[in-house]
Amino acid sequence: MDSMMMGAMSKDMMSMPGMEMMDMSIMQACMDACSACEQACTVCSTQMMSCAPACMNCADMCNTMMRAMMRMQGMTPAAMMAMLDACIAMCQVAMDECMEHADHSEVCKMCAQACQACMDACMSMKNTMMSMS
Amino acid sequence: MDSMMMGAMSKDMMSMPGMEMMDMSIMQACMDACSACEQACTVCSTQMMSCAPACMNCADMCNTMMRAMMRMQGMTPAAMMAMLDACIAMCQVAMDECMEHADHSEVCKMCAQACQACMDACMSMKNTMMSMS
Amino acid sequence: MDSMMMGAMSKDMMSMPGMEMMDMSIMQACMDACSACEQACTVCSTQMMSCAPACMNCADMCNTMMRAMMRMQGMTPAAMMAMLDACIAMCQVAMDECMEHADHSEVCKMCAQACQACMDACMSMKNTMMSMS
Amino acid sequence: MDSMMMGAMSKDMMSMPGMEMMDMSIMQACMDACSACEQACTVCSTQMMSCAPACMNCADMCNTMMRAMMRMQGMTPAAMMAMLDACIAMCQVAMDECMEHADHSEVCKMCAQACQACMDACMSMKNTMMSMS
Repeated sequence: MDSMMMGAMSKDMMSMPGMEMMDMSIMQACMDACSACEQACTVCSTQMMSCAPACMNCADMCNTMMRAMMRMQGMTPAAMMAMLDACIAMCQVAMDECMEHADHSEVCKMCAQACQACMDACMSMKNTMMSMS
Repeated sequence: MDSMMMGAMSKDMMSMPGMEMMDMSIMQACMDACSACEQACTVCSTQMMSCAPACMNCADMCNTMMRAMMRMQGMTPAAMMAMLDACIAMCQVAMDECMEHADHSEVCKMCAQACQACMDACMSMKNTMMSMS
Repeated sequence: MDSMMMGAMSKDMMSMPGMEMMDMSIMQACMDACSACEQACTVCSTQMMSCAPACMNCADMCNTMMRAMMRMQGMTPAAMMAMLDACIAMCQVAMDECMEHADHSEVCKMCAQACQACMDACMSMKNTMMSMS
Repeated sequence: MDSMMMGAMSKDMMSMPGMEMMDMSIMQACMDACSACEQACTVCSTQMMSCAPACMNCADMCNTMMRAMMRMQGMTPAAMMAMLDACIAMCQVAMDECMEHADHSEVCKMCAQACQACMDACMSMKNTMMSMS
């Protein structure tokens, strides 16, 4: 995400109850990883390989996750945790499917990496939120 | 969802491992409840009341959930469970926010009902999936 | 769309400049056709036939179109016309692709019908808007 | 978009009829501008200012536009042109609305810039496509 926009958004977010201590660099990294994963999965799903349905599901979940982090006014810690778990689970499925073709398809290999990076970023986000509560 | 399309989709889905016993009427009801909740939340969010960010998050999650049920080829039981939990949590947040305005806003009242119905349908879906495993 | 929600939304919409004369039944039919087309295209795209990328594009465009009609506060007549044209064009592409498989795939046949119905509904919406200006 | 993924995608795309001459750097810039505009509009819409419905519409249209460029297998030149026109029109509406608050809201100011950049990128994309046909 654009760093100036992130700055303006952060100021807003830090004033929400329970968000004062949020590490905004971890949140920004998570948004970016979700965005990159949505893009990789969208490209990957056009290949018509068996991973396509998982990648389409993952693209939608990552977009929904990214937007939710931009709209924390409409989230609770419990809902964030559940969304992060769903995003992690969905990335896992898409990654597993893509790994089966990673040897023949450069796109699947890159998509699996984007899924892994998104899982890691969501996990960091979860850890940060847990340490805050 | 259109019943003829649901029929064609069901035939496909029943052949997936672990889905032979799925009660398709429960899945169809869940898709329809997600679709109705996305629509209610989208309308509700235009009112510029404090529930708007929660309703936008809920609209996106419900759409992602509905599509995932239409693309079960790209789901696992674990991912489905996590997505259903996320959808239930998100509907709860939107419903709680809307209930605070239910007395002054007819739209918020209807939106809260759509969120409740979606939560119930996702819960039924979870129960069905758990009884299958 | 739920008729009670449509009623509440209509009241709101009729008070927007330029919308006093909108035939709400035509708008509701268009929203419903967009929703049905999104669903049909989402199911169709899981078949991994050559129509899949067109159907995914069409599903996204139809969802965006449907939501825009629910958020007319953030539209102008010019933007509505351009969006309707885009939705019609996208439905045409998905329908053409699906018609090539309509003989072997029941889902493609139904998807092509949903695309056609959505095109027709968008066309009616355009005609209504043109007659108002 | 990730440059390695863009490279893999470009190879695929250049083999589609009518796409041999596409300037991939212009397409990549357009995808990136759509993604940035979706993010800016999503953040902006949480401010509950009068631009919110336009920004939500714009966020959805930009996401749909970005994905369509990643799924050119399911596009025709005519549909691309219509989608680009719709995206330009929608960005114009969101920009106009945000400009009314640009003096008091830093976020609206940045959002208007993201809308303008997205319009410009879509215009370049249109020009490139027209020069190819």
